[in-house]
Amino acid sequence: MQTPADVLIEALPYFREFYGKIVVVKYGGNAMIDETLKEQVMQDIALLHYVGIRPILVHGGGPEISALMKQMGYEPTFVGGLRVTDAATMEIVEMVLAGKTNKSIVALLNRQGAQAVGLSGKDANLIVACKMHSPKGDLGYVGEVARVNPGILNLLVERGYIPVVSSVAIGPDGESYNVNADHVAGHIAAAVGAAKLVILTDVEGLYADYNDKSSLIVDMDVARAEEMLRTGAADRGMIPKLEACITAIEGGVPRCHLIDGRKPHALLIEIFTDQGIGTMVHGSGA
Amino acid sequence: MQTPADVLIEALPYFREFYGKIVVVKYGGNAMIDETLKEQVMQDIALLHYVGIRPILVHGGGPEISALMKQMGYEPTFVGGLRVTDAATMEIVEMVLAGKTNKSIVALLNRQGAQAVGLSGKDANLIVACKMHSPKGDLGYVGEVARVNPGILNLLVERGYIPVVSSVAIGPDGESYNVNADHVAGHIAAAVGAAKLVILTDVEGLYADYNDKSSLIVDMDVARAEEMLRTGAADRGMIPKLEACITAIEGGVPRCHLIDGRKPHALLIEIFTDQGIGTMVHGSGA
Amino acid sequence: MQTPADVLIEALPYFREFYGKIVVVKYGGNAMIDETLKEQVMQDIALLHYVGIRPILVHGGGPEISALMKQMGYEPTFVGGLRVTDAATMEIVEMVLAGKTNKSIVALLNRQGAQAVGLSGKDANLIVACKMHSPKGDLGYVGEVARVNPGILNLLVERGYIPVVSSVAIGPDGESYNVNADHVAGHIAAAVGAAKLVILTDVEGLYADYNDKSSLIVDMDVARAEEMLRTGAADRGMIPKLEACITAIEGGVPRCHLIDGRKPHALLIEIFTDQGIGTMVHGSGA
Amino acid sequence: MQTPADVLIEALPYFREFYGKIVVVKYGGNAMIDETLKEQVMQDIALLHYVGIRPILVHGGGPEISALMKQMGYEPTFVGGLRVTDAATMEIVEMVLAGKTNKSIVALLNRQGAQAVGLSGKDANLIVACKMHSPKGDLGYVGEVARVNPGILNLLVERGYIPVVSSVAIGPDGESYNVNADHVAGHIAAAVGAAKLVILTDVEGLYADYNDKSSLIVDMDVARAEEMLRTGAADRGMIPKLEACITAIEGGVPRCHLIDGRKPHALLIEIFTDQGIGTMVHGSGA
Amino acid sequence: MQTPADVLIEALPYFREFYGKIVVVKYGGNAMIDETLKEQVMQDIALLHYVGIRPILVHGGGPEISALMKQMGYEPTFVGGLRVTDAATMEIVEMVLAGKTNKSIVALLNRQGAQAVGLSGKDANLIVACKMHSPKGDLGYVGEVARVNPGILNLLVERGYIPVVSSVAIGPDGESYNVNADHVAGHIAAAVGAAKLVILTDVEGLYADYNDKSSLIVDMDVARAEEMLRTGAADRGMIPKLEACITAIEGGVPRCHLIDGRKPHALLIEIFTDQGIGTMVHGSGA
Amino acid sequence: MQTPADVLIEALPYFREFYGKIVVVKYGGNAMIDETLKEQVMQDIALLHYVGIRPILVHGGGPEISALMKQMGYEPTFVGGLRVTDAATMEIVEMVLAGKTNKSIVALLNRQGAQAVGLSGKDANLIVACKMHSPKGDLGYVGEVARVNPGILNLLVERGYIPVVSSVAIGPDGESYNVNADHVAGHIAAAVGAAKLVILTDVEGLYADYNDKSSLIVDMDVARAEEMLRTGAADRGMIPKLEACITAIEGGVPRCHLIDGRKPHALLIEIFTDQGIGTMVHGSGA
Repeated sequence: MQTPADVLIEALPYFREFYGKIVVVKYGGNAMIDETLKEQVMQDIALLHYVGIRPILVHGGGPEISALMKQMGYEPTFVGGLRVTDAATMEIVEMVLAGKTNKSIVALLNRQGAQAVGLSGKDANLIVACKMHSPKGDLGYVGEVARVNPGILNLLVERGYIPVVSSVAIGPDGESYNVNADHVAGHIAAAVGAAKLVILTDVEGLYADYNDKSSLIVDMDVARAEEMLRTGAADRGMIPKLEACITAIEGGVPRCHLIDGRKPHALLIEIFTDQGIGTMVHGSGA
Repeated sequence: MQTPADVLIEALPYFREFYGKIVVVKYGGNAMIDETLKEQVMQDIALLHYVGIRPILVHGGGPEISALMKQMGYEPTFVGGLRVTDAATMEIVEMVLAGKTNKSIVALLNRQGAQAVGLSGKDANLIVACKMHSPKGDLGYVGEVARVNPGILNLLVERGYIPVVSSVAIGPDGESYNVNADHVAGHIAAAVGAAKLVILTDVEGLYADYNDKSSLIVDMDVARAEEMLRTGAADRGMIPKLEACITAIEGGVPRCHLIDGRKPHALLIEIFTDQGIGTMVHGSGA
Repeated sequence: MQTPADVLIEALPYFREFYGKIVVVKYGGNAMIDETLKEQVMQDIALLHYVGIRPILVHGGGPEISALMKQMGYEPTFVGGLRVTDAATMEIVEMVLAGKTNKSIVALLNRQGAQAVGLSGKDANLIVACKMHSPKGDLGYVGEVARVNPGILNLLVERGYIPVVSSVAIGPDGESYNVNADHVAGHIAAAVGAAKLVILTDVEGLYADYNDKSSLIVDMDVARAEEMLRTGAADRGMIPKLEACITAIEGGVPRCHLIDGRKPHALLIEIFTDQGIGTMVHGSGA
Repeated sequence: MQTPADVLIEALPYFREFYGKIVVVKYGGNAMIDETLKEQVMQDIALLHYVGIRPILVHGGGPEISALMKQMGYEPTFVGGLRVTDAATMEIVEMVLAGKTNKSIVALLNRQGAQAVGLSGKDANLIVACKMHSPKGDLGYVGEVARVNPGILNLLVERGYIPVVSSVAIGPDGESYNVNADHVAGHIAAAVGAAKLVILTDVEGLYADYNDKSSLIVDMDVARAEEMLRTGAADRGMIPKLEACITAIEGGVPRCHLIDGRKPHALLIEIFTDQGIGTMVHGSGA
Repeated sequence: MQTPADVLIEALPYFREFYGKIVVVKYGGNAMIDETLKEQVMQDIALLHYVGIRPILVHGGGPEISALMKQMGYEPTFVGGLRVTDAATMEIVEMVLAGKTNKSIVALLNRQGAQAVGLSGKDANLIVACKMHSPKGDLGYVGEVARVNPGILNLLVERGYIPVVSSVAIGPDGESYNVNADHVAGHIAAAVGAAKLVILTDVEGLYADYNDKSSLIVDMDVARAEEMLRTGAADRGMIPKLEACITAIEGGVPRCHLIDGRKPHALLIEIFTDQGIGTMVHGSGA
Repeated sequence: MQTPADVLIEALPYFREFYGKIVVVKYGGNAMIDETLKEQVMQDIALLHYVGIRPILVHGGGPEISALMKQMGYEPTFVGGLRVTDAATMEIVEMVLAGKTNKSIVALLNRQGAQAVGLSGKDANLIVACKMHSPKGDLGYVGEVARVNPGILNLLVERGYIPVVSSVAIGPDGESYNVNADHVAGHIAAAVGAAKLVILTDVEGLYADYNDKSSLIVDMDVARAEEMLRTGAADRGMIPKLEACITAIEGGVPRCHLIDGRKPHALLIEIFTDQGIGTMVHGSGA
């Protein structure tokens, strides 16, 4: 049996490796809904901060957007599987993400003794988007990440603040865009030169064949990730996550991880123990 | 007739006086609703920034909160003239203030070429509140400003960012509180050592007798402001604004201004011209 | 009619553009003699400083040198149109430029609330000259600018001082040289990476044909400036000014301006209004 | 059973508390002799460093001094229980402490990936001693700590180096003095404003009655520590350790710990777990 | 006989004592006229700079002012022994001091490889004067030092420049004042916290009885200096020098020296050798 | 005869040249044994420090190692002229060098008012060695310098400390290696970008023919030094010194000096006088 000291000593090489480095965490799924898991993720993030790592948290929405829309009497429309986001919908999305989810995460982190600062992509023009053009019709304010201006993130992490970023972007005329939070995390990881991108999901990791739970991929290079996207082998929900990993790796992030956010303290286990969890994507040369 | 050069030369003593100083602007009323006025205030704030002043913008909500509440089917309740803010209401207040109003101001400022960063009182524990206790009944999440932690504001203004602060505060257990935006502005002005607090209102200024439009007070000291509060001479809407001025002045801010936000570029006129506008409140010794 | 606020708002893009940038102003002609104009130029320079621009002022002499020479009983000699500057003359030139004109400008700027520091080219070896060789005879201590050592200027502007530089240079053996003040301004603008060089003159600007006052050139590129020098199209008094613009532009300064210093606040109008004044010279690619 | 994540989460409040703080560790006893324990202490110190704490290690000699003396043919003499340290003995003491023990600790820490720098009290006049005067006779170069000059320690810890200090001090004429390593640790902890002083010993902690192993004192204030010294209740070997705790606490260190260095990773357990180990001494008010 | 090494070793305690300290040197008398002595003083000042001391040079005029005045046809008038300085005279004084003497010293220092920067009391409002009121009549622009603003001096010495200050001051309305250079040196020494004030004179030092060359005072405290002024025991030419010493000492400068500038390298001998030269004035307690 | 002032003035160009530069001094031979010479070297090093130079002292052992070995009963063995250094010998070497010689130098420098800090090659991994492989047999812990990590040296000299480095290196597994002190000095000079390497020896300098004392080489380039090594023309004791010079020069050090440490204050004479002493080695292009 491991004593507490054993655990800490096992973690030593990881403390050493990530000392002073930035780790971008994409927070979502069950870990964002279940109160116990939520609390645990906040402890994990605070712990990263206190052992000298510089975490940046990126989050999207969740069921809260749909709930509010329903309450306000809106009916969702879809084009090619993507939600049509008209101006009224965008307003709701932004209120929920930047005004509710973001600030609630900030408050939870502050309760752990951290100093979190919530940002949307509008703050200091952090995330600049362009409109997504779908061949199947106008999607409204659905955008794609065009550029990340990381100045404000670097300033905050250097001074010991934990940035919490919601996936709302700013368009060329100051308008809001709804962008994919996984993509935001990938672009931010690349722009700040993160040592790691960790994406919390609701599955164990990536399966070679997603009908076969025994086919979990523990470790793959970026070329295989690209291949899986090309051949459609990846499960639909995993596509933006794989894309985020590819963006990050091409931007110089050495390792990206898809891990199971339903597992208590998955983040700590991934970062500080020898025990492999989830799927790691790394550069082709690594 | 004044040439452009005359105007700039008239402004010279003011440029000199406020060079490198912080000016806190409470933004509200019509200037927040009328699109032209809104645009003008944003230009004014950007101009302050570009001539070497460090503006901090504080805003409350506006009619948007009530509109959203109605749309969601909520009926407001009042106790002693104050809106009872239950948890559901507080959530709406926070979404509107921190997710909609705040981010829309940030986007407008960024279009002027500035780098604005939106904050709520939760970010970096900026505004700490305690529950307001009313003798007439429980008001729910209505709070009073207990403390301002100005570290994040000082960091941002030193680096050339413009902080935009919404009047949501954090309570002892991380819960959200609805606090008066004038009060927030007064406390922030005191905490950062501002050279000025300017409150935009929908009236010309403070009247000695608010039924007599010819009784505008151009200049008064803090003792008279306190007297007006004590004797009930101040118009109800002006009470929190006067309180904010008193908080600021007691905290060391030399001058506070109540000016008419309906007037185009009232802020610039107040700060950069010899033309007196609105009501100035200053320390007793000044 | 423009209100003061309109003027300030019109100036906003210029405040933004020049925020934190260095502007080199060559001060001379009537603006240096007429007391009212002098006062106005000092206000303009102080204003540049207070709106966050970093001005550097370069000046030559004026009628004061000749006046002192006459008073001391010296008779000027000329060779090929250039004044022969023997040791005694050089001493007078230096006393007037560095001891009288320079310090009087410094005092006027200080009265505007600025912190000006007068320098000659000897201070910290700021302007290094070599002897000018004329085919028509020995000119004595007439020099050409060989190099500018901008360290002291950068230090002073970073700390908020306004450097005022007189056109006396230091030679290889520590001797003084009389150098052209326009040339000094051009070399300094290039050496400090100025955003602008503005030369105050006693004419409206540059004329395509200097006998025809309707032929004012509003805007031209550096190639045309070189062409005018080559073909002798430029008025004799404008030659060193054009040369200074070319030096500055080749050294990376994007825009140079020849403006009419007899016009009140010409400097402010040029920098902060949409109204074009004088002649602008810019790089060929611009 | 605790999972690794549980252990880390239990450590979170301690990571938070000691983030960026200095912890002085007095290293001695079996932990300095047993190879496995030695390796573990080095891991523990490296871990402190990597989780953002700033450790300073203080060590004395050990059996190595006596061994070398014997090998060189010296016979120890004692006066009142203290070893008489003549010049030759002092030379041996210094060679062993500063040349062997110190450098071997440095090398072990470096193998853990740290950047350790060995210092004796002579380096940068770190530890200044005066001669100890014994009523029973001349003790030679046995000294008492007179002053600590902590400048070099502060410089090194700020830059991420781990100072390793041997208990040799410098006298008024540059001569070497043998000083008690516990005392050195206490003085250094006070001088650098440490958050903790941890003294590794070969016993469980301090016993109220040292013949009764069930009388371990878990927690006591400084007044009781002083009382125990006065009344002679403390075991002889514990006297300098208690004195060091008192020096540190009077110098502002909030907590001192006497812990059992024979226990694997005692240091980590003391600092990062809820499990109390050894004896804590704290200020009277705490 | 001393070898070069002996000399350097004798200087060691002085190098140590003045390392990084400011020494103010009042330069005047024969050392300012004789070419060989002048060159030697410049070497001495450069040497101070290169061994890590921060010299500030203060100078007045000399025979050059009178010479220029005569050349320009002015006849000096005196009131109570002080030259009446009308506007025309002041202009000449300023031209000579700030434009000729100052810049010539700067050039000589630069030839020694230093980076000297000439300043008059107008630059950055360095020396502020008020008009001197004489009971015997109006003296015109003769002023007394009212205040020194040492900011620019501190900036320059920190960056390794050698400030050279001429004794022209700025009055309340920006007008020039002729002030005593000894007084300027005393005030500057006090304002910058100099370690020494050294005044070069044309006599050996101060005599107890100035008719008796054997009565040289080697060392006296400030009380005796004040006594000598009160009783009129000091030679007339020494009065302002003694006053400067008193100003400096009251402002915290530990030691002031009146030394013989006619003696080659008197400055080096005073500062770097054990050989006492001239008269030292020190605080009463010293 | 030279006066003290003459000596200082002669030194002025050298003060200027080395201001703020690093000079590495290899200390050894008689200057390390003779008490008077030792004291003088310490004065010289302190003097370098106080005149703004940044000295680094490198030393080896000397007769003390052999003395201690004998006292402990060890008999030296040699292979191909190199001492076989088994583990026990290495321990003695390290104790003497890092614990005795090093600390004694530190104490002597501190008595001169300096702040010296002793380092061995283990501290902060300063000197990394690999095992020397001799064709004639195993030499044990005799190493060759593989790499110098100069970070700690740069930190210390910038803050005004004088590093004193003993020639013990750290091997790949943290083991100690005995390395040649001349080689260490050469590598350190190259790694810190020294302006000079000065090696104190017991001879006058390098002789073209070491049997002919009149053949002293005053000045040679690195090509000739390499030639002398290749042809075996250099005296055996000079070989590592010449190698050190070559390492330093190839690493960018402009000048290296072999000087006679038996001569009082040889270091000062070499650095601060026009008098050439010893042998200078410089780059081929110089």
